[in-house]
Amino acid sequence: MSADECPACIPGFEIGHAHDLEALTGCTVVLAPEGAVCGVDVRGSAPGTRETDLLDPSNLVEKVHAVLLAGGSAFGLDAAAGVSRWLEERGYGFETGFAKVPIVPGAVLYDLALGRPDRRPDAAMGYAACEDARHRSEGRSDVPLEGNVGAGAGASVGKLLGPFQATKTGVGATFLAGAGGLVVGAAVAVNAFGDVRDPVTGEIVAGTRNPTGGWLDTTAALTGGSGETPFGLGRNTTIGVVVTNATLSKAQARKVAQMAHDGLALTISPVHTMFDGDAIFTMGSGRLNTPVEVSVIGTLAVRAVAGAVVRAATTAGPAGGLPAAAG
Amino acid sequence: MSADECPACIPGFEIGHAHDLEALTGCTVVLAPEGAVCGVDVRGSAPGTRETDLLDPSNLVEKVHAVLLAGGSAFGLDAAAGVSRWLEERGYGFETGFAKVPIVPGAVLYDLALGRPDRRPDAAMGYAACEDARHRSEGRSDVPLEGNVGAGAGASVGKLLGPFQATKTGVGATFLAGAGGLVVGAAVAVNAFGDVRDPVTGEIVAGTRNPTGGWLDTTAALTGGSGETPFGLGRNTTIGVVVTNATLSKAQARKVAQMAHDGLALTISPVHTMFDGDAIFTMGSGRLNTPVEVSVIGTLAVRAVAGAVVRAATTAGPAGGLPAAAG
Repeated sequence: MSADECPACIPGFEIGHAHDLEALTGCTVVLAPEGAVCGVDVRGSAPGTRETDLLDPSNLVEKVHAVLLAGGSAFGLDAAAGVSRWLEERGYGFETGFAKVPIVPGAVLYDLALGRPDRRPDAAMGYAACEDARHRSEGRSDVPLEGNVGAGAGASVGKLLGPFQATKTGVGATFLAGAGGLVVGAAVAVNAFGDVRDPVTGEIVAGTRNPTGGWLDTTAALTGGSGETPFGLGRNTTIGVVVTNATLSKAQARKVAQMAHDGLALTISPVHTMFDGDAIFTMGSGRLNTPVEVSVIGTLAVRAVAGAVVRAATTAGPAGGLPAAAG
Repeated sequence: MSADECPACIPGFEIGHAHDLEALTGCTVVLAPEGAVCGVDVRGSAPGTRETDLLDPSNLVEKVHAVLLAGGSAFGLDAAAGVSRWLEERGYGFETGFAKVPIVPGAVLYDLALGRPDRRPDAAMGYAACEDARHRSEGRSDVPLEGNVGAGAGASVGKLLGPFQATKTGVGATFLAGAGGLVVGAAVAVNAFGDVRDPVTGEIVAGTRNPTGGWLDTTAALTGGSGETPFGLGRNTTIGVVVTNATLSKAQARKVAQMAHDGLALTISPVHTMFDGDAIFTMGSGRLNTPVEVSVIGTLAVRAVAGAVVRAATTAGPAGGLPAAAG
C-alpha cells in the first residue's frame, strides 16, 4: 500500500496540511470527526503539548476528534483553536449537554531557526489544515501528503553543529496492512537533533553535514567526543500520529504509542535526548470489530513509524538554505 | 495578610482577570514575566490542559512565564494565545536563539451550562487578562480579585441535581506568611461537582440546593443513595495556582501541587471524582534565597488552597439564575 493511497486507507480518518513556505512553518491535522480512542507517549524532554492529560486511561473522555501536529514551537499550539472551530461548525465534538466540545490533543516542534521566526501556525492555519484534510478525503487536495508540508514545512535533522549544518526533512507517512483487515499507518514530522538512518543498512540518510563534506556521525561524535557539543536548547522534536482501524481501549492506545517510539529508535540516532520533545499519538477508529492483540498493532506501528521517518527524510526538498537528502 | 493586599505580596507575580459577564465565562492569568519554576498535579479525571508535559521534572524547560486558568471547557485553552502574545510583545519568554518562546501552561473548567455556551475565552480575552494583571500590579485595576471574575465568572458547585440546582461560586484567593519571609498564596476557581464545606465546622457553605429548601448533602446522597445519580459528564473542575517566593526545583513544585490538592479534600465534598478535572499548578519565584523544607511550603499551600476555596464560595454573587452563598 503506497503512501499516495493512504488518505483513503483508513475510513474515519482524514489528514491535512497547511503551511507558510516563506516562513517555513505549518501544521498537520489528523481528523477523526466521529471520534477515535487516543493515547499518547511523550518521551522527549522538551515537549510542547495540549490536552494530553485527558488521554490518561484513568480519565473520563474516551475519544478525541483530531490530533494536531504543528511547527512554531509553543506558539504553534494556537492552531488547535482553528481545528476546534472547524469541528464545531460541523457539529463534531464531545456532547456535554450545552455544547459539543471538540477534543483536540496536539504537540509542536521547533522550526523557528528556518524561515521567519515571527510567523507561526495560528488558528487560521489550523482551520486550513482541516479544510485540506476534507479535500484530500474527497480526492481533491493539491497539497502533497509528504515532504516539506504541514508540521514538517520547517523541519530538519542533524543539529550537532547547529541549525545551519542540518539537513531538511519534513513529513513522512507509511501505511501497513496486517492480517484480518487490520491497517496501521503513521504520519511523522521529523525534526530531530540526531541523524536519520536507514533501519536496514544503518547508513545515514539525512543528518549533520560535515563542513569538510559528507555526513558527520552524530552518535559517534557525541560518544567519542569531548562532551563540549553545541547542543541547541529545546530546538528539536519528532512528533507523529499512528492511526489504526483496530478497536483499542485508551490504555491500549497508549501502549501502541509507547511501542511506536521504537520506530524512532530504529531510525534516528540519537533520539529522545534532552533536546528533543518527541511525542507520538495513537488513534483507533474501532471500525475493525475483530479483536487484535495489542502487541501486533504495536509491532506494525513500529514499522510504520520507522518507514515514515525515512520517508520524511527522502521526500523533503531543500529549503531555508538547507539541502535535503534527495538533493 | 488580606486578599486585597495580595497582588503586591509576592514580587515577581501578577494576577489578572478578564471575563464576559453576559456569557458567564472568563480567564485568569498569573504572570511571572521573569520566569517561575512550575509544577502541576492533575488529579481530576476530566482535565483540559496545555503544556503540562514540559512540567515533568525530567524535562528540559525550567521556568514558565504565566499560568492560565480559563472557563469555556477545551475551547478556553485558546486564551493562551493571547497570553503568549502579550508576553512576546514585551520580550518575555524562553530564549531559543531565534525567538523568545513564552511558556504558558494552563487548565480549563466547564462553564458552558451558565450564560452563553457559544462565547468562550479566546486570545483577546487572554491578552486582556494580562493587561489587567499589569494594571493590578500598578494599583490601577478596577476588577475585583475575587468572586464572579476571570476563570470563575461562570463557576458553580453542587451539581448532583444538574447545573440549575447548583450554587454560584467564583475565584477565591488566600495569602499566608510563613517564618523567615516565606509567603505562600493560592488563587482557585471553584467549579466542583461536590459541595463546598467550611473546613473547621464541616458545614456546607455552597452546594446542591435541595428543591425543598436548604442544602442537599452530596456525599451523603451519593453514599446512601441508589447509585442512580444524574452526574453531568465532565462538567466540573476546580483549577488553581499556588504561588510562593520560595526557591523550588521542578520536582519540589510538583510536590507542593500534590499536597495542595489536600486543600480541596478539606473543603469540597466529594472532590476528584470522574466528573471533575481538578488541577493545581505551583509557581516559585525563587526570590527567597534561604532554604525552606518543601513540606512546610506544601502545608501552607494546603491552608491557602482551603482558604481560597471557601472565599471562592463566599465572595461570589448570584448569576445565570443561580443564587450564591452570600445571597
